[in-house]
Amino acid sequence: IKSAGCCKRFLHYAFDYETPKTLVIPSLGVGFVFRFTQFLVVMYVVGYVCVVQKAYQDTDTVISTVTTKVKGFAFTNTSDTEPRFWDVADYIIPPQGDHSFFVLTNMVVTPKQVQSRCPELPSPSTICVDDCNCVEGHSDPRGNGIQTGLCENYSTTARTCEVLSWCPLEIDTKHALLAAAENFTVLIKNSITYPKFNFHRRNILPHVNSSYLKRCEFSRLTDPHCPIFRLKDIVSEAGEDFQDMAVKGGILGILIDWSCDLDWWAGECLPKYSFRRLDNKHPVNNVAPGYNFRFAKYYKTADGEETRTLIKAYGIRFDVIVFGTAGRFSIVPTIVNLGAALSFLSLVPVVADWFLVTCSRKRDLYSRHKTTHLTEDADSASVRDFSPSLSLMNLISTD
Amino acid sequence: IKSAGCCKRFLHYAFDYETPKTLVIPSLGVGFVFRFTQFLVVMYVVGYVCVVQKAYQDTDTVISTVTTKVKGFAFTNTSDTEPRFWDVADYIIPPQGDHSFFVLTNMVVTPKQVQSRCPELPSPSTICVDDCNCVEGHSDPRGNGIQTGLCENYSTTARTCEVLSWCPLEIDTKHALLAAAENFTVLIKNSITYPKFNFHRRNILPHVNSSYLKRCEFSRLTDPHCPIFRLKDIVSEAGEDFQDMAVKGGILGILIDWSCDLDWWAGECLPKYSFRRLDNKHPVNNVAPGYNFRFAKYYKTADGEETRTLIKAYGIRFDVIVFGTAGRFSIVPTIVNLGAALSFLSLVPVVADWFLVTCSRKRDLYSRHKTTHLTEDADSASVRDFSPSLSLMNLISTD
Amino acid sequence: IKSAGCCKRFLHYAFDYETPKTLVIPSLGVGFVFRFTQFLVVMYVVGYVCVVQKAYQDTDTVISTVTTKVKGFAFTNTSDTEPRFWDVADYIIPPQGDHSFFVLTNMVVTPKQVQSRCPELPSPSTICVDDCNCVEGHSDPRGNGIQTGLCENYSTTARTCEVLSWCPLEIDTKHALLAAAENFTVLIKNSITYPKFNFHRRNILPHVNSSYLKRCEFSRLTDPHCPIFRLKDIVSEAGEDFQDMAVKGGILGILIDWSCDLDWWAGECLPKYSFRRLDNKHPVNNVAPGYNFRFAKYYKTADGEETRTLIKAYGIRFDVIVFGTAGRFSIVPTIVNLGAALSFLSLVPVVADWFLVTCSRKRDLYSRHKTTHLTEDADSASVRDFSPSLSLMNLISTD
Repeated sequence: IKSAGCCKRFLHYAFDYETPKTLVIPSLGVGFVFRFTQFLVVMYVVGYVCVVQKAYQDTDTVISTVTTKVKGFAFTNTSDTEPRFWDVADYIIPPQGDHSFFVLTNMVVTPKQVQSRCPELPSPSTICVDDCNCVEGHSDPRGNGIQTGLCENYSTTARTCEVLSWCPLEIDTKHALLAAAENFTVLIKNSITYPKFNFHRRNILPHVNSSYLKRCEFSRLTDPHCPIFRLKDIVSEAGEDFQDMAVKGGILGILIDWSCDLDWWAGECLPKYSFRRLDNKHPVNNVAPGYNFRFAKYYKTADGEETRTLIKAYGIRFDVIVFGTAGRFSIVPTIVNLGAALSFLSLVPVVADWFLVTCSRKRDLYSRHKTTHLTEDADSASVRDFSPSLSLMNLISTD
Repeated sequence: IKSAGCCKRFLHYAFDYETPKTLVIPSLGVGFVFRFTQFLVVMYVVGYVCVVQKAYQDTDTVISTVTTKVKGFAFTNTSDTEPRFWDVADYIIPPQGDHSFFVLTNMVVTPKQVQSRCPELPSPSTICVDDCNCVEGHSDPRGNGIQTGLCENYSTTARTCEVLSWCPLEIDTKHALLAAAENFTVLIKNSITYPKFNFHRRNILPHVNSSYLKRCEFSRLTDPHCPIFRLKDIVSEAGEDFQDMAVKGGILGILIDWSCDLDWWAGECLPKYSFRRLDNKHPVNNVAPGYNFRFAKYYKTADGEETRTLIKAYGIRFDVIVFGTAGRFSIVPTIVNLGAALSFLSLVPVVADWFLVTCSRKRDLYSRHKTTHLTEDADSASVRDFSPSLSLMNLISTD
Repeated sequence: IKSAGCCKRFLHYAFDYETPKTLVIPSLGVGFVFRFTQFLVVMYVVGYVCVVQKAYQDTDTVISTVTTKVKGFAFTNTSDTEPRFWDVADYIIPPQGDHSFFVLTNMVVTPKQVQSRCPELPSPSTICVDDCNCVEGHSDPRGNGIQTGLCENYSTTARTCEVLSWCPLEIDTKHALLAAAENFTVLIKNSITYPKFNFHRRNILPHVNSSYLKRCEFSRLTDPHCPIFRLKDIVSEAGEDFQDMAVKGGILGILIDWSCDLDWWAGECLPKYSFRRLDNKHPVNNVAPGYNFRFAKYYKTADGEETRTLIKAYGIRFDVIVFGTAGRFSIVPTIVNLGAALSFLSLVPVVADWFLVTCSRKRDLYSRHKTTHLTEDADSASVRDFSPSLSLMNLISTD
């Protein structure tokens, strides 16, 4: 009998259902406030969280591979340099066609340099009168070599300290400009993956055929999905002038945005191209504006001496930057955001109750029925008089 | 006295505790519905959010550095080319051993090119009868140089327009294949960091010793953590044939997945290797299939003229792609997800109440005790008759 | 009349407001527990979620471009090699100045290699007595070429198998160290974008002028925002010694942290530099410690034979790694986190109710007024006696 009673008590404990007592108030005003607040919360959840922010989606960032291939040739024939024909192997450095490629557009060529001694270029710190002005072994980071301690004639008018260096030194005045580079074209092949969603895509779209690819050229209006770009167009889409940029060099970003909504009801996932200059072209607050670097081709003369042709290469580095976030419906963010929204629904009664007891016409009546006040000195269940049922009980008990 | 009253009212306002009046219903049915719904929500939270999605974790993405070093040599001896021995310095371009390295597997070599004039390769647009067919200064992007306006004998049977270019022109037929490249091995050294968790790891595991590293070779079954890979194995794991791929070239991704659960109760954090061809090998919808680029080695002849050897290099670019997301217990996502789950717990009484007043056998009794209806024209606290306490009050007050 | 009644019922259904009946308990103890629990939750939300974790922000990861330019020159004059002057075009490989640049600090030069035959370097597997020990066509991956099957004199004391290779073979003992490399400086230009917030910034800060940039040098204390770094300082900030590292080479990470709070009330968004060695320098568990690679310069002799100078280049690869997450106030994460917090506020009454019915002094009184128990066999609204209102009703109804 005892265990049966115990079991019964457990059942009561576990399965008795405790539910709040409620009061139904037939007030249009309060009801309207309640429903309107509810409506606002639901609108917010549906409209903003779900439609605008797509908070029901799980997201992943893109992994991508890029191959680039430049085509075109140029011919330079200026007074400073020999006439020369340039093809891809000459002006693309490095040649691999990675996600970042450099197109040589301007250069200072210093041929036939050998390891020897020659007078420095004239500058306030290198001009000398006699050997006493030059310190053997001194190397000025802004100079071109290690001083030998001698003072030599640089020209008929100037004497400068002699340095140990690759001589003759580079004189940064004779430029050879590849103006024709603006008509080079580049084919960009880009494959992307969203590993979380096992989603693969290429920027050469499936419905595109080979003959189209052979003749097309990117144009935002007419051919927005052609992967072949004319360099001039890229630069002008970035708001720059190719010939201006060619002189000092620069860095140009080809941004491919693969942000996609992968849910089946959303449209197709297509790349969006945009172009932006990435370096700072303004001369203010700028050291070494533009983009250039020096490299050398090494030769050996017939008697085994090493010579080099130093090239200060100005040009445009094109960085293909692939970015994007894909979203697809997933249960966890949906639950999290729905949970947050439901929390706000639980705020609605707070608003409505506040309206009920402060603003509604019959607020006294409503709060009298809704709220029971226990008096402070209550011991034998005495309550304040505006609590109807309990006061009533008092009434009867004192009967 | 007044301030004391004011203070008292404040205390009442701040510390009076308002709690809902509740009704306990000893119904097994309703109780079961209530507990079962609760159980479902708790199961969802524990099972799906915590165990499957690990929503209690904060996450970080990987930062990584890769060094690669290829070993092996090859010997080519075809009828088209001179016998030649190839080592790492010859076939790895660029030589640095970055996260992306290219192994030369096939090439078209055009030696002794000089800047001069020569007749174009025959094609419908270059074949000519006399000089009138050739336009001086015209440069066809699909051609090889700038037309001089002359029409020259290309062979005994064909006449083509002469171009200014690097001559002789490249003829894309004489290939030299490095078949032995499939036996080259590559050592991949990869260090990763999860900066948010201050977690560092290498793909050479701590328990591995140097003698093992000197002789091991990656094999998914027997040596899954050896960082030395045979190129042939990489390609065949990606579902391709090395010799096929060597001819036209391609891009092969070596994917290292460092996705880890960094909580102490989870296992060790180990890299997982996978291999995937990244370019599109199918000839449909494909321009320039495979992977190749042109580069040149520049020489000077004894009399100072520049010549070059043009190499059209086909080969496999191996891209080491490191990715991964690590998770570790963190209080904020835990709170957010618990919060969302608790919101769902607050839905449980809604379900149980609905069951109570619509489906349970004694629904009339329950709703009579649970809900009090104020009548619409209530002014002097008149209520509908099935609200016991209030109607009772009326009864007495009308007494 | 019927439709009017129907409409009225719909209005009642839609706009009748159902609110819980509540009991106000004037107990300081319970009130204090309630307010204190509320306070704890609010503190947690404000203090931890909002201030520490900034959970009210939407986040985005950085997209960046890096250009580097090294300056400086060196002179080597050891007994092993000819005196030689080194400038940027000689020691920066590749020359482009990408986000990853390599500074040559030590090298083994093997000049005048030609394709020919020579005896292997002596090792247990290459030493031979006569031709029978050598297998024609055999190529040992750890050797230097393909065996011809002959056994030749390597020196007066040792005979080794002859191989077909680039001869003479590299002998890894004559090093040429560029000790002066520690004084080279590098200018790092870094532009970043947070695309989601349309936020662009450079590591050359707007208030910095050109004259400062021409003379400044990074120093954590005095010039923390100068983008020009002395290589020696980078290495020593990473806890390494430049001269030690120069011998075997290594990889050094220049980490630029652009983690920013983009809210207007937060401070400026500035890059934070840190430096860390990325490869493993310890000889334990290490194959090929340090960082080196082989490359060759190709020459042609007067009679057209190809020769090369093989260079085993040791040096430091500097990887500029840009990372960071920016946060800016956004409504969705704010709502989600507030929602989660509000869920916890709904836990507060549970705690207070539990305290009310178990710990408070007058718990019997409180629970008698708060909770009404329906008896199990209730059919005609019979309830247990401690539910005052209902028992009262019974009293009267049985009257």
